[in-house]
Amino acid sequence: MQALARSDFEALDRDDPLSSYRAQFDIPEDIIYLDGNSLGVLPKATKARLREVVETQWGEGLIRSWVDADWINAPARVGDKIARFIGAKSGEVIVCDSTSVNLFKLAAAAVQMNPGKSKIISEPGNFPTDLYVLQGLVEFLQGRVELVTLPRENIKDAIDEDTALVVLTHVHYKTGEMYDMSEITKAAHKKSALTLWDLSHSAGAVPLDLNTTAVDFAVGCGYKYLNGGPGAPAFLYIAQKHHAQVRQPLSGWFGHARPFAFVDDYEAAPGIERALCGTPSVIATSALETGVDIMASVNQQQLREKSCQLGDLFIQLVTSRCPEFEILSPRNSDARGSQVSIGHEQGYAIIQSLIQRKVIGDFRAPNVLRFGFTPLYLRYVDIWDCVDNLVDIMATGEWDCAAYKTMAAVT
Amino acid sequence: MQALARSDFEALDRDDPLSSYRAQFDIPEDIIYLDGNSLGVLPKATKARLREVVETQWGEGLIRSWVDADWINAPARVGDKIARFIGAKSGEVIVCDSTSVNLFKLAAAAVQMNPGKSKIISEPGNFPTDLYVLQGLVEFLQGRVELVTLPRENIKDAIDEDTALVVLTHVHYKTGEMYDMSEITKAAHKKSALTLWDLSHSAGAVPLDLNTTAVDFAVGCGYKYLNGGPGAPAFLYIAQKHHAQVRQPLSGWFGHARPFAFVDDYEAAPGIERALCGTPSVIATSALETGVDIMASVNQQQLREKSCQLGDLFIQLVTSRCPEFEILSPRNSDARGSQVSIGHEQGYAIIQSLIQRKVIGDFRAPNVLRFGFTPLYLRYVDIWDCVDNLVDIMATGEWDCAAYKTMAAVT
Repeated sequence: MQALARSDFEALDRDDPLSSYRAQFDIPEDIIYLDGNSLGVLPKATKARLREVVETQWGEGLIRSWVDADWINAPARVGDKIARFIGAKSGEVIVCDSTSVNLFKLAAAAVQMNPGKSKIISEPGNFPTDLYVLQGLVEFLQGRVELVTLPRENIKDAIDEDTALVVLTHVHYKTGEMYDMSEITKAAHKKSALTLWDLSHSAGAVPLDLNTTAVDFAVGCGYKYLNGGPGAPAFLYIAQKHHAQVRQPLSGWFGHARPFAFVDDYEAAPGIERALCGTPSVIATSALETGVDIMASVNQQQLREKSCQLGDLFIQLVTSRCPEFEILSPRNSDARGSQVSIGHEQGYAIIQSLIQRKVIGDFRAPNVLRFGFTPLYLRYVDIWDCVDNLVDIMATGEWDCAAYKTMAAVT
Repeated sequence: MQALARSDFEALDRDDPLSSYRAQFDIPEDIIYLDGNSLGVLPKATKARLREVVETQWGEGLIRSWVDADWINAPARVGDKIARFIGAKSGEVIVCDSTSVNLFKLAAAAVQMNPGKSKIISEPGNFPTDLYVLQGLVEFLQGRVELVTLPRENIKDAIDEDTALVVLTHVHYKTGEMYDMSEITKAAHKKSALTLWDLSHSAGAVPLDLNTTAVDFAVGCGYKYLNGGPGAPAFLYIAQKHHAQVRQPLSGWFGHARPFAFVDDYEAAPGIERALCGTPSVIATSALETGVDIMASVNQQQLREKSCQLGDLFIQLVTSRCPEFEILSPRNSDARGSQVSIGHEQGYAIIQSLIQRKVIGDFRAPNVLRFGFTPLYLRYVDIWDCVDNLVDIMATGEWDCAAYKTMAAVT
């Protein structure tokens, strides 16, 4: 394979059909941002949108804006927009609460829908909140269900008649490894088990077709690839055929069939609204909507092609120029989400050193340097420049200083 | 009693020690806003705060702002600020999720803390989401607990040895009637029952002293008297003595002792953070913080005195000038929150007619016209002008038209 040069990446940028999207975001000039899988960037339109929502709709419209500015329908409206690019129907997706809260709602609902079965299956090393929420559910139900975690290669065969629910993250947060969603879902359905997929690293990152895949339930994150802002509301999906059966225990007033009738007895809304709980944050939902609008306008196939190419090129460059790093993500882009992780025992200090150079990736214990490739706003040259910095850091040994090794880590 | 005139209200405004606060809010000039108990107004400082959070902290700081802008501590930081004016200690209050979600967490935790007891007591006509969430919990637990609702005058005596938890709203959303929190809490503790108070119509409206009252748990709303914006995050309170025992089932990663260690097993944070679930909305929490900062700067006793006086004057004016309305709130301000409700069988059309005149109150079925008195930014003349408009509407009969009677209602 011929050695690559920066000019090759410049050429790819010139030919990139998605190149115009970058201008829709505020991205600091001096930064190479490879952490959009942790927190997406700020859409320029979000600034004007929030001014409108805060200063006009709230400030002037006040309580009247629940109707006049259609705040009341924001969760379903934004959900419908997400539905379009994850292969769901209108009325199957709604925006609300956090991914964790939504996981609880749907896992609890699934357990109730499969009352004779006692097993929830997941995998060790799943994104921690998924496991924590399932542990909380199991403990709360005092023995009605148990959580069984198995290495991913064993999951399909472990699904049995006693399995109520399989909860997996489609694209692994640490390695980027991607499940065959269709295969697992089929195996679950064969045993009358339900499936709940966490799409936090998938929606807006890889093509999804929930209806065709016959997924039962899904949740996903608003602040990663959807660029909804820090801690943006999450979304959840319930296949239409399950709507009438779903009883989720967080039955707050926004999930009521007639929330403003103020009656004493809960009656679940007929559709996806039954997944709502309390009053949704209008400001946060509006910020998310702006990010979602951009994502909904993108050709998902072009997005995927660029994503794969960015990852492939990164792997190729690291392999040839920084062979001391282990490639922890699948080399085959078909089995990989929109990120590449590489391993090094000094990974923590190396990431800090990169961040100091304004190349922002992140670190995951014990040794993972994680780089998110968000094709909507990244340039091919960003990949080159990232690896170039990495080469330089390793050559100079500048990562090897006390400050980087002891720096406080949060995300 | 001598008849009042508008000039009396102007004089009260001149002497009002809180009058300077109004300038801290954006309130449309042409509106008399008596719905701050449903959605508070926009603090002017919120606009600059949100620009800072969105454009600088998110837009430029990106993922680094979790540490650099202290996003990570926002829930506890804002909680501590609320603690100061509700009589709680630092570390007993945290901001997160919605009131409904927080109700579920704490009711679930309380039930688990009182495993031998089977009864949750509340009242019919409590704010619907409180009842709905408790119904969801009871259904989910399949008979482990039952919900018993009793008229408020019977509640104290109904608390028995089998009562796990008493869940009440301190100030009734519809009538403004206020419980003697201390009396009920004592009665509960005598039977080893726990108490969970909904402070949605209390925090920032009436003096609270949770520690002295020995309340176990509480939740409250951010978007009413705290002016945190539409659907603002809620807060919750757990008395310090219960921290170690509280296991709430929504055990998401933000409630973990070490959320960024990414370990597989949940370990609850030692303090109030164990009540957190998923990633909090930074934008929504920041908007709330600005409202809370203002409330924290106010003399709560002055606030209460003005609130009582606004309500008393309103009742006096309605009684003398619009005797066809029934006063539905306690006439004694000691037993009343910061609102007054009046009844009329044509209430719905009358409220629409008032709103058309830019006097904004709200309607609650079947016949309640509800007026919130938010002493932080209301003027005494607003009370006069509201009743003056009401007198005029009744005299002209302008409410009696089809448009008002059929208008869509939301909040």
